Amino acid sequence: MSKNIIEEFNSYREKMNERILATDNKILKRIFSVDSMAYQEGALSVQTKELLGLMGSLVLRCDDCVKYHVQKAWQEGVTKEQIIETFALANVVGGTIVIPHTRRALEFLESLEESSSCT
Amino acid sequence: MSKNIIEEFNSYREKMNERILATDNKILKRIFSVDSMAYQEGALSVQTKELLGLMGSLVLRCDDCVKYHVQKAWQEGVTKEQIIETFALANVVGGTIVIPHTRRALEFLESLEESSSCT
Amino acid sequence: MSKNIIEEFNSYREKMNERILATDNKILKRIFSVDSMAYQEGALSVQTKELLGLMGSLVLRCDDCVKYHVQKAWQEGVTKEQIIETFALANVVGGTIVIPHTRRALEFLESLEESSSCT
Amino acid sequence: MSKNIIEEFNSYREKMNERILATDNKILKRIFSVDSMAYQEGALSVQTKELLGLMGSLVLRCDDCVKYHVQKAWQEGVTKEQIIETFALANVVGGTIVIPHTRRALEFLESLEESSSCT
Amino acid sequence: MSKNIIEEFNSYREKMNERILATDNKILKRIFSVDSMAYQEGALSVQTKELLGLMGSLVLRCDDCVKYHVQKAWQEGVTKEQIIETFALANVVGGTIVIPHTRRALEFLESLEESSSCT
Amino acid sequence: MSKNIIEEFNSYREKMNERILATDNKILKRIFSVDSMAYQEGALSVQTKELLGLMGSLVLRCDDCVKYHVQKAWQEGVTKEQIIETFALANVVGGTIVIPHTRRALEFLESLEESSSCT
Repeated sequence: MSKNIIEEFNSYREKMNERILATDNKILKRIFSVDSMAYQEGALSVQTKELLGLMGSLVLRCDDCVKYHVQKAWQEGVTKEQIIETFALANVVGGTIVIPHTRRALEFLESLEESSSCT
Repeated sequence: MSKNIIEEFNSYREKMNERILATDNKILKRIFSVDSMAYQEGALSVQTKELLGLMGSLVLRCDDCVKYHVQKAWQEGVTKEQIIETFALANVVGGTIVIPHTRRALEFLESLEESSSCT
Repeated sequence: MSKNIIEEFNSYREKMNERILATDNKILKRIFSVDSMAYQEGALSVQTKELLGLMGSLVLRCDDCVKYHVQKAWQEGVTKEQIIETFALANVVGGTIVIPHTRRALEFLESLEESSSCT
Repeated sequence: MSKNIIEEFNSYREKMNERILATDNKILKRIFSVDSMAYQEGALSVQTKELLGLMGSLVLRCDDCVKYHVQKAWQEGVTKEQIIETFALANVVGGTIVIPHTRRALEFLESLEESSSCT
Repeated sequence: MSKNIIEEFNSYREKMNERILATDNKILKRIFSVDSMAYQEGALSVQTKELLGLMGSLVLRCDDCVKYHVQKAWQEGVTKEQIIETFALANVVGGTIVIPHTRRALEFLESLEESSSCT
Repeated sequence: MSKNIIEEFNSYREKMNERILATDNKILKRIFSVDSMAYQEGALSVQTKELLGLMGSLVLRCDDCVKYHVQKAWQEGVTKEQIIETFALANVVGGTIVIPHTRRALEFLESLEESSSCT
C-alpha cells in the first residue's frame, strides 16, 4: 500500500509536468531548466542542496514539494536521521503549523524506506 | 472524467458558500459582497481583474481560489495563452513552490477547455 | 457521514503523531511538549487560547491545524457563534484567500455539532 | 524617546489612511469599514478580538499590524501578561521566524507602558 | 522630498543588483534574465503584466517589489486609477494585512506622480 | 560603515532578546532554548544546519533571521560561495520575491567579509 503513495505522486507529477512543457511557454520552460540546474553539485553537495530544497518546501508548507525533495534526498543517499533533523529544524523555524506537513512527510519517507527494503 | 473535477469543485463551493451565508454573520456577508464588487468592470476590465485574482491566488498557493479564477477568466473569454502567461508570471514571482499548484491549475484549465469543446 | 470527517482526521493525526515521536528526535519531542504547554490556562483562558490557535491557523491557511483548534475549542465549550466570529476575523485579516479554508472549517464545525447532538 | 515610536507610527498611519480614503476607491473604503466593524463587541469581547487581530498579525509577520493591535488591546485594558501570552502562542504556531517581530512588538508594548505611566 | 523615496529605492536596488551579478553565480544570473523576459509583451500586454507583478508583490507583502512594479507600471503608462484598483483587489484577496503595504505603495505612487508633474 | 550594519543588528537583537527573557514567560523561554538546541551538531553538521536556517529564513523572507544565519554560518566557517549558492536556491524555490531580501543579505555578508579582513 505504501508503494501507492509514491507511485501516485510520481505519476501525476510526471504527467502534468509534461503537459506544462507541452504548453510551449518559454518562461515555464526556463524555470524548469533553472530548477534542475540549481540542485547540481557546486560549492555545496547535491545532498545538502536537496536538504535545502526540503527545508524551503517544509517552511512554505508545500506537500508536493516536500515529497519531491524527500524522495530526491533519499535517492542521493541522505540518511533517515538527516532528513528527520531537517524536519525538526523546519518545525522550529516554521512553527507548529508545519506539524501536519511533517506527518505527511514522514509517512512518505517511511514508505520510501519500506519500498527500498522490499527489493 | 474531466467534467468531474469541475462539477465537484463547483458543487462543494456552492453548497458551503450557502452554509457560510446561512450562519448569518454580517462580517462574512460583507466580505462576500465586497469580493464580488471588486471584480466588476472599472478602470480595469473584468478580464484583467480575473487574471489579477488568479495571480494573487497562485502566489498565495490557494488551489481552490486558483480554480475559481481560472474558471471565471475562461468564462469571460480570456484565452488559454493569456491564462498560461499568468501561470508563468506566478512561477517567476512565487518560485518553484508554485509548480505543483500550476499542475493542478493546468489540469483544471484543460478540463474546462475539453468540456467547452464537447458541447 | 459527518462522523467520518472527524474520525478520519483524528485517527490519521494520532497515528502519525505517534510515528513522529517514535523517531526519537529530541527537538520534535520538545516542540510537541511546548505546543501542549502553550495552550494551558494562564493570563488567558484555555478558550481564548484555542481561538488564538484557530486564528493563527486560519490566516496561515493550514486546514489540519484549523480542524484541530475548532475541535479543541468546541470541546472546551466555546460556542458556535464565537468560533464563527473567529472565522470572520480571519477572513478580514487574511483576505478572501481564507474563504475556501472557511468552507472546510465550517463543514468540520457543523459535523462536530451534529455528532454531539446525536448522542 | 519611547514616545517617538508610538507617535511616528500613529502619525504616518493616519496620514496615509486619509490619503487612501482620498483616492475615493469604493472597494478600499468598504474594506476599511468592514475592518472596523469586525472588531466590535459581539459573541466575543473587544479585548478577545484585539488579541485575535494581534495573533493573526504576528503569525503573518506584519509589524505595523502588530503595533496597531498591541496599541488597541492596551487601550482596551488587556494586560501586559495577556499580550505577552499572545506573543508566546504566535511564536509557537508561527515558529522562530516570529522572534524578530516579537522584539519589535515588545519594544512597542513597553513604550506604551512607559508613556502611560508618565502621565 | 518625494524624489528622495524614489531615488533612494532605485539607487540601492541598482547598486545591490550589480553586486549580486558580480558574485557570478549562474543560477542568480538566470533568475534575473528569466525575470526580465517574463514581463515582455506576449499574449498579455506589458501593462497587464506589470499589474500582475504588482498584484503578486502586494499579496506577498514585499514592499520593494511593490515599489518596483508601481514604478514600471507608471512608466508604461498605466493610470493611477488602474494601479489603485490593483491595490484594492490585493486588499480583498490578501486581507487587511495588506493595508500597511498599501500605505507605502500609495506614498510611492504619489511621489512618482508629483515628480512627473514637476518636469 | 559596514561595521555599523552588523553592530546595529547585533546590539538591538541582544538588547531585545534580554527583554523578552525578562518577561519571564515560560513558553518564550522554552522556544529560545529549543531554538539553540536545534542548531547543534547531530546527524547534520552545524554548518549544514545554519544553511538550512538561512534557507528557511530567506524563503519566509525574514531579513533579521537571514542576517542572523548569514553571520552564524560565516562564523562557523561556511564559505561565501556556499552562502551564495544558498541564496540562489532560495531565489529558485521562493521566486523573485526573494530578490530584495537577497540584496540586503549580500550587503550583510559582504560587510562581514570586510570586517573580518580588517582585523
